[in-house]
Amino acid sequence: MIDTRQENTIELATAPAEGRSDALVPIAPHMGRPRVVVVGAGFGGLSAARTLAHGAVDVLVLDRNNYHGFWPLLYQVATAGLESESIAYPVRAILRKHRNAAFAMLAARGVDFERRLVLTDGVPLEYDYLILAAGSANNYFGNDALAERTYGLKDLNDAERLRNRILSAFERAALEPDPARRAALLTLVVVGGGPTGVELAGAFAELIRHVLRKDYPMLDVSQARVLLVEAGDRILATFPASLQRKALRRLERMGVEVRLNTAVASVEDEAVVFKDGAQLVAGTVVWAAGVRAAALADVLGVAQARGARVKVAPTLNLPDRPEVFVVGDMAYLEGYHGSQAYPQVAQVALQQGKQAARNILAQVQGQPMRAFRYLDLGNFATIGRSAAILDTFGIRLSGFLAWIGWLFIHLMYLAGFRNRLIVLANWAYSYFTYDRGVRLITSDDETRKT
Amino acid sequence: MIDTRQENTIELATAPAEGRSDALVPIAPHMGRPRVVVVGAGFGGLSAARTLAHGAVDVLVLDRNNYHGFWPLLYQVATAGLESESIAYPVRAILRKHRNAAFAMLAARGVDFERRLVLTDGVPLEYDYLILAAGSANNYFGNDALAERTYGLKDLNDAERLRNRILSAFERAALEPDPARRAALLTLVVVGGGPTGVELAGAFAELIRHVLRKDYPMLDVSQARVLLVEAGDRILATFPASLQRKALRRLERMGVEVRLNTAVASVEDEAVVFKDGAQLVAGTVVWAAGVRAAALADVLGVAQARGARVKVAPTLNLPDRPEVFVVGDMAYLEGYHGSQAYPQVAQVALQQGKQAARNILAQVQGQPMRAFRYLDLGNFATIGRSAAILDTFGIRLSGFLAWIGWLFIHLMYLAGFRNRLIVLANWAYSYFTYDRGVRLITSDDETRKT
Repeated sequence: MIDTRQENTIELATAPAEGRSDALVPIAPHMGRPRVVVVGAGFGGLSAARTLAHGAVDVLVLDRNNYHGFWPLLYQVATAGLESESIAYPVRAILRKHRNAAFAMLAARGVDFERRLVLTDGVPLEYDYLILAAGSANNYFGNDALAERTYGLKDLNDAERLRNRILSAFERAALEPDPARRAALLTLVVVGGGPTGVELAGAFAELIRHVLRKDYPMLDVSQARVLLVEAGDRILATFPASLQRKALRRLERMGVEVRLNTAVASVEDEAVVFKDGAQLVAGTVVWAAGVRAAALADVLGVAQARGARVKVAPTLNLPDRPEVFVVGDMAYLEGYHGSQAYPQVAQVALQQGKQAARNILAQVQGQPMRAFRYLDLGNFATIGRSAAILDTFGIRLSGFLAWIGWLFIHLMYLAGFRNRLIVLANWAYSYFTYDRGVRLITSDDETRKT
Repeated sequence: MIDTRQENTIELATAPAEGRSDALVPIAPHMGRPRVVVVGAGFGGLSAARTLAHGAVDVLVLDRNNYHGFWPLLYQVATAGLESESIAYPVRAILRKHRNAAFAMLAARGVDFERRLVLTDGVPLEYDYLILAAGSANNYFGNDALAERTYGLKDLNDAERLRNRILSAFERAALEPDPARRAALLTLVVVGGGPTGVELAGAFAELIRHVLRKDYPMLDVSQARVLLVEAGDRILATFPASLQRKALRRLERMGVEVRLNTAVASVEDEAVVFKDGAQLVAGTVVWAAGVRAAALADVLGVAQARGARVKVAPTLNLPDRPEVFVVGDMAYLEGYHGSQAYPQVAQVALQQGKQAARNILAQVQGQPMRAFRYLDLGNFATIGRSAAILDTFGIRLSGFLAWIGWLFIHLMYLAGFRNRLIVLANWAYSYFTYDRGVRLITSDDETRKT
């Protein structure tokens, strides 16, 4: 029998709080205080939950996964630099220290605003206050073929699938007698010149140059191509022009073929068709050309803006529902650099989650809510080994110093002491050896997209 | 364009060696020397390949995966102690330093002994010498229902599936209002009291006691049970009786319910039925009660012994084929402790792989082959944090010292400097914090077996 002597075990059969139905009992602590349900354990949801945990409320966090993913490092999982486990951390471990916060692994399927119920793939859950922080998904602009024939990079499954695909393509190329087929297998096209596309293209070029070339001595790796395709006339549109140029030069020096002013019309099996009619044979196409709010945004019956994002008041709640908040990638609010929409980045989600939580605590205490104010910590992108660009508080850096800054900030934010340790060990190893430790093909899923 | 200036790039279109068909060209180096094909990149296959790489032969290693798995630590992946990547290492990275050794990710489907061809899921491959080291699979003794309703532990997919299953079971239990259903979800039965079963049961008991109990404060974890079921009258049958008793006491102290003399008749959905008619409701049943040779052994048309293992001559080749060797878990040879069959353990595979390679090199040089001689380095099993048993060269140890020995030996054998670093970091972290870093549910596969 497992030893269970511990003082704070709360029996599952806790009596239901006043006016609550039985079905809702087992999941969360009940201290008779207002219950806040937080949908999503990303940056927005977790920052909200942590802030709320210090107030006189009960908090229940829902997520379809049992972990928080540190997505800024997701491209490193896709390029065999880090294992999945080092950028993900169990939500329960994060919430463990808060007595009034609980977690349930459930996917939210909708909200009944009138009855104040979150509908899930399990039991429906009552709330007094609700924070929706379900994040974003790839935006294929309604083009299902695009969704089917390209690889995304939004979660761990995406990243592992992409890693398996690329490594399998090299394995198959090593067995392929036909030079044209072989060239196709070794061609990777990344669509979208934002930070995700740039980081991914750079990391793939390095993987090929430093690792795969040595792994496949029989293969002529000069046939391997990494292309970064951008519809606009520059990459990293949110950065200053001087840093854009530096990033572009750096990418090209690393062997990435950057194609600006090149819009994709469609993706066929093993080929990209551009709007000007040109075609490019490519075994793997990554779609990093746009995100939209998570599908949950579509079933709420509320006003949506560009990218399906939910329009919120400056206090981050729905305009007509002071008890329902939407934060992070799902939310649409103007006020960034004047009247632009706040960007879908981790910093905005972190700060909005905190503000939404504070506004809930204000309501509980009968205080007025405050409008969201953003402290812009700057903009980062990494382009490869020892190279990044950084634009913060008027400082514009590129190269090694920016990379050290990027490394430091990402390690600081990464949840969990253990993960920091593992990531640091991986990076130190890769840095000094030019090797990538985790180039394993862990599944044959990739054949799905052959 | 990727920079490919490197001296030792060998063009794919190397001219075929005398008398070889074109289809076989691109994969392996050809220096006009005898080609040895090694099927399997486990302990046996890799130790053979490394030995051969120092001889005047060309070596081609095949495996359906692109990595070598360090299976002695597989139970730690299943119990959220290590990530998959830290016990697996790319075969190409291991073979990289040998100019005359190559790798192809292909699964062997059979052998045409007359034409000296290995049949694969891709092109057929010619050999002059062949080493079959495809390892073992779970033995369900022809009972398909057993295979369907239980979890195995033979590769990374198995381990991750088991981890996902157990962690998901706890997540579902936290949402389950029915106490009987909840108890079922929290019951894990391990069938088989060999080293795998013992290590797994111990590690699960520790996971529950030290980690999950804190993760699920709302759940009464005293309902969680780990049972180890063994048909014989003792666990760890290959160890001396004194160590068996110590291991048994240790397991029981850790909370594992050990049931000896208990044979399983069948596994139903969510229940184990024993031969005496008793039933036990269990959400997860792990089958660790026997292994058999890999399926490849069945299609060779050669004599097989118990567990479908291929009978080999003392020199490790097929009795009537001096050019075909079988080593490791796939091979059946008597001579262990007198007239017993050599056990299916890493040490035997390592040493047999080496001897088979030496016998091939002997044939190439016109020297006589030598019979396999086993240097018994002893027997190890770990039972949990700071506890192991060790039986080597007449020394019988248990407890902390044995555990340190176990840790040291496993780290030494683990392929790759990076993996050693990561595993050590993980272990140090777990040891001092009692935490497990990688308790992520990475897939919903587990519903398959609900």
